[in-house]
Amino acid sequence: MRPPTPLVPVMGGDATTPRMFLDRVRTAVEERLHEIFEQVEGDTTAAAADTLPMLHAARDLTLRGGKRLRPALMFAAIDCVEPGAYPHAAADVGAALELFQTYLLIHDDWMDNDPVRRGAPSVHVALGRHYNNAHLGACAAILAGDMLCALVHELIGSVEIPGPRRRALVHAFGRMEREVILGQCLDVTLNEDIQRIHDLKTGSYTVRGPMLLGAAIAGASDEAKRAMELFAEPLGLAFQLRDDILGAFGSEADTGKPVGGDFREGKNTLLVRHAMEHLGATDRAELQSILGRRDATESEVLRARALVERSGAREHAELVVRAYRERCLSALDSPALRADGRALLAGFVALLTERTK
Amino acid sequence: MRPPTPLVPVMGGDATTPRMFLDRVRTAVEERLHEIFEQVEGDTTAAAADTLPMLHAARDLTLRGGKRLRPALMFAAIDCVEPGAYPHAAADVGAALELFQTYLLIHDDWMDNDPVRRGAPSVHVALGRHYNNAHLGACAAILAGDMLCALVHELIGSVEIPGPRRRALVHAFGRMEREVILGQCLDVTLNEDIQRIHDLKTGSYTVRGPMLLGAAIAGASDEAKRAMELFAEPLGLAFQLRDDILGAFGSEADTGKPVGGDFREGKNTLLVRHAMEHLGATDRAELQSILGRRDATESEVLRARALVERSGAREHAELVVRAYRERCLSALDSPALRADGRALLAGFVALLTERTK
Repeated sequence: MRPPTPLVPVMGGDATTPRMFLDRVRTAVEERLHEIFEQVEGDTTAAAADTLPMLHAARDLTLRGGKRLRPALMFAAIDCVEPGAYPHAAADVGAALELFQTYLLIHDDWMDNDPVRRGAPSVHVALGRHYNNAHLGACAAILAGDMLCALVHELIGSVEIPGPRRRALVHAFGRMEREVILGQCLDVTLNEDIQRIHDLKTGSYTVRGPMLLGAAIAGASDEAKRAMELFAEPLGLAFQLRDDILGAFGSEADTGKPVGGDFREGKNTLLVRHAMEHLGATDRAELQSILGRRDATESEVLRARALVERSGAREHAELVVRAYRERCLSALDSPALRADGRALLAGFVALLTERTK
Repeated sequence: MRPPTPLVPVMGGDATTPRMFLDRVRTAVEERLHEIFEQVEGDTTAAAADTLPMLHAARDLTLRGGKRLRPALMFAAIDCVEPGAYPHAAADVGAALELFQTYLLIHDDWMDNDPVRRGAPSVHVALGRHYNNAHLGACAAILAGDMLCALVHELIGSVEIPGPRRRALVHAFGRMEREVILGQCLDVTLNEDIQRIHDLKTGSYTVRGPMLLGAAIAGASDEAKRAMELFAEPLGLAFQLRDDILGAFGSEADTGKPVGGDFREGKNTLLVRHAMEHLGATDRAELQSILGRRDATESEVLRARALVERSGAREHAELVVRAYRERCLSALDSPALRADGRALLAGFVALLTERTK
């Protein structure tokens, strides 16, 4: 992998609002992603041009990604410890986080039989159409994920930071990667322990993992890392819950996914669990008869949504989100973290838990 | 990942025969693999014990592996440049190569719908039985591969060698990983360019990749690396051809796979291609009618084998193997490689191209 071109500086106290900070991170990370895909496109064309549809599907999904939230949390963690530390390494790790997410999404979408991702056909569907064969599409999608995973590790393995930080980085990445795979395994095999699945699957690589990668780059103390973990856990759970609320009640325009897809998939969310526990027997039976049916009609899905709403699950979920938010904010009250970084993270809490998409 | 326990020394001029050398490598690598799986088993039990069937399937296939050929080629490459260089790093990279191979085999077997691997059910089949659901088995198998890939990169990322060697190592691993994925993509999408598929898929990670990893650990000169590449290319091709010959004419006891599986799969080998070009029209039509039929009977498969034999494909393939072997041996004639390492590699050439299993 070639070294990156000089970077737009991401950090610094003049990025006063979280939104401005997010914009700068997005610019830096997307610039790096474009460079990476350009180089890999060249390598792939030289080695096996016939495989370009696979690479392009992986690239398109990556570049269709929106918020670049995970790199932003990583950069914010750096700001909590040593603002501006190793900007090239940080941009590479930020790009690696986005490639890692695409890799996971591609494999997950095939496993969950999810036809749409980020407002367009998911990779196994797009490649299935290209090869006019669903199994070949699935194979090429798995390989597209595998290819992104290879790129992730070329980036992580090539990061140039002092030895102890590099070791911490590799360790944090490995922990995150293994956790998210275990979480997905629990999820796909229909394990009942939702909280554990969320912690392993969403918590680890949405908030905790990226922050600990930032901590590694910035050479954070054990105390700073502990504060970040205490902050990350409730934020990850709140983020997941907001995702579930949007999945149940959001519009397709907001989420990029068909309305009520979570109901058709029979996704075992806190909302559904609450509804099943609080609805009367007749409503519960009706809800049960709709959940998990891929062929449920539009009006059935809307009926499921109304039943979940009636159970009080939505208000309950909003209360839980609020409680998580309080826990996040009090974890930030640590002298091991720099004040400007803490302010930024506090802004993120609002942004992530109140978001509408 | 914890550091390894002190190692049985692998290298040294007293391992006079390639077989003795292979035995020592096997001992060192398998010891490290056991340590790694023990640690990961502990981590996994703590994080999500319900996922242990996935880990165990991945572990069992890895430990069922036989020759540990790839690590041996890596150690031999080290012997060509700086015998005994960084033995702990070498053992870790050797273990990573075996984990990498298991990862690829698991994903490939699902893609190719291969029910048997190394004399037992392949991972997607074993997990499909465990979960009593073929799709869940496939998902858990893909995740088992993903998990091994994560371990591979924890090992590669944690290797402690001087900076320039580490960079060369990460670069060589990344190149190998990307090439083998491209090769598999060509293979699975039924590309006609067999030679390119072999070079990318088998050549890269059977011979060239492992040797360049050894070269990186030993700090090889560009000239030494070039000599290794010149040696690796024909050896990889000869190895693949031997594999195809065994796949067509070997017994189940030797190969660990059902007789004639390659015919039932319709595998596009040099043997089949030669037969199709040299058989008369009637024989060709008969062969064509058997190839690629999963439900072909035992006697049909034996008939296909007889037709391929009659075409002269087997003698032709043996001639080609011999020509590759000559190219290997002449590439070894380089002053950039140490004499004892070259002797070892020359022994490997015979072992690998004349093997019967």
